[in-house]
Amino acid sequence: MEQGKTFIISGPSGVGKSTVLRELFRGRDDLYFSISATTRPPRKGEVDGVHYHFIDVPRFQKLIGEDALLEYAEYVGNFYGTPKKLVDQAMDEGKDVILDIEVQGALQVKAKRPETVRIFIAPPSWDELERRLKGRGTDSDAKIQKRLLRAKTELQTADVYDYFVINDTVGQAVRELNAIMLAEHCKPADRMKILKEGTLS
Amino acid sequence: MEQGKTFIISGPSGVGKSTVLRELFRGRDDLYFSISATTRPPRKGEVDGVHYHFIDVPRFQKLIGEDALLEYAEYVGNFYGTPKKLVDQAMDEGKDVILDIEVQGALQVKAKRPETVRIFIAPPSWDELERRLKGRGTDSDAKIQKRLLRAKTELQTADVYDYFVINDTVGQAVRELNAIMLAEHCKPADRMKILKEGTLS
Repeated sequence: MEQGKTFIISGPSGVGKSTVLRELFRGRDDLYFSISATTRPPRKGEVDGVHYHFIDVPRFQKLIGEDALLEYAEYVGNFYGTPKKLVDQAMDEGKDVILDIEVQGALQVKAKRPETVRIFIAPPSWDELERRLKGRGTDSDAKIQKRLLRAKTELQTADVYDYFVINDTVGQAVRELNAIMLAEHCKPADRMKILKEGTLS
Repeated sequence: MEQGKTFIISGPSGVGKSTVLRELFRGRDDLYFSISATTRPPRKGEVDGVHYHFIDVPRFQKLIGEDALLEYAEYVGNFYGTPKKLVDQAMDEGKDVILDIEVQGALQVKAKRPETVRIFIAPPSWDELERRLKGRGTDSDAKIQKRLLRAKTELQTADVYDYFVINDTVGQAVRELNAIMLAEHCKPADRMKILKEGTLS
């Protein structure tokens, strides 16, 4: 069986990443969505093992000490991280793994596992991103301007990413993600393994 | 308009490359198949500008002298080469260009234009390749063994290629080629150009 691969998908607030990922996962049991561990207490409606793996601070520190996290970060007093074990298990089962993490996390994973494929979802334009953020109706104008500034800063870290998907329409963005994943499986390192395991020897 | 890209597709005799390419081009006017120039006289039924650009030796030598060929080779006394001009023209029209050339040609293009994407179409197994060569009914057993040996040698030049498509079924091979072409258009160099030409500046 062919080993799965890990794909990092990052993108600014409002770019429509959740919608794209939901569409990507529709009817797919060969994809695994990595669920983060966090020390933040569950919010109303959040389920352990579905939205996050909710763990306490000593347990999180133990994971850091054991180098059991692919990446982690502190955000307003809480820790968030990606447990290696579940990612590796899914890849061993032949599943491709999607990590929905930010630029800082992508940098950490790049350092630990350079073979991880990093994809940035970009908006078709800043105006469109602003329009989408306003459309959500969840943020104040000040917050939206802050988010836009952050998105522009993130795009400066472009060299961390292997691919840019422009989310103009969800359908095209999903097509591009699927194309990237399939193309990555055609790279020599993976394919030579298959060819050598077969009778091509 | 987005600039087209050039894709080299190589593969051993009998792997089914022609069938895959015919299927890839079906109904596509955004793809350009590069037609080689040759000094070989046309065979019965061959049309100038369709099967080859038939030119004389002085004209071919002039093209070499002007560095107007992406790659060229001599084969049993005749010259074959890829004219740069038509490739560049198609790319400027936003079309992706397919070059159906061999390993030696791929090496020459890699040296001149490292950004060219190189794809090798491999058989699922040597047994299957032998079966396909026999199925064509055009070659003697000795010739088939020679072709198999050549195919095995070609696979040793794997590091020239960026991708390996295994032609197990034509449908899957075409899906993989399309995925590779779309994924390559999502690479940072291309996408940052679009993002900067847009309002992402």
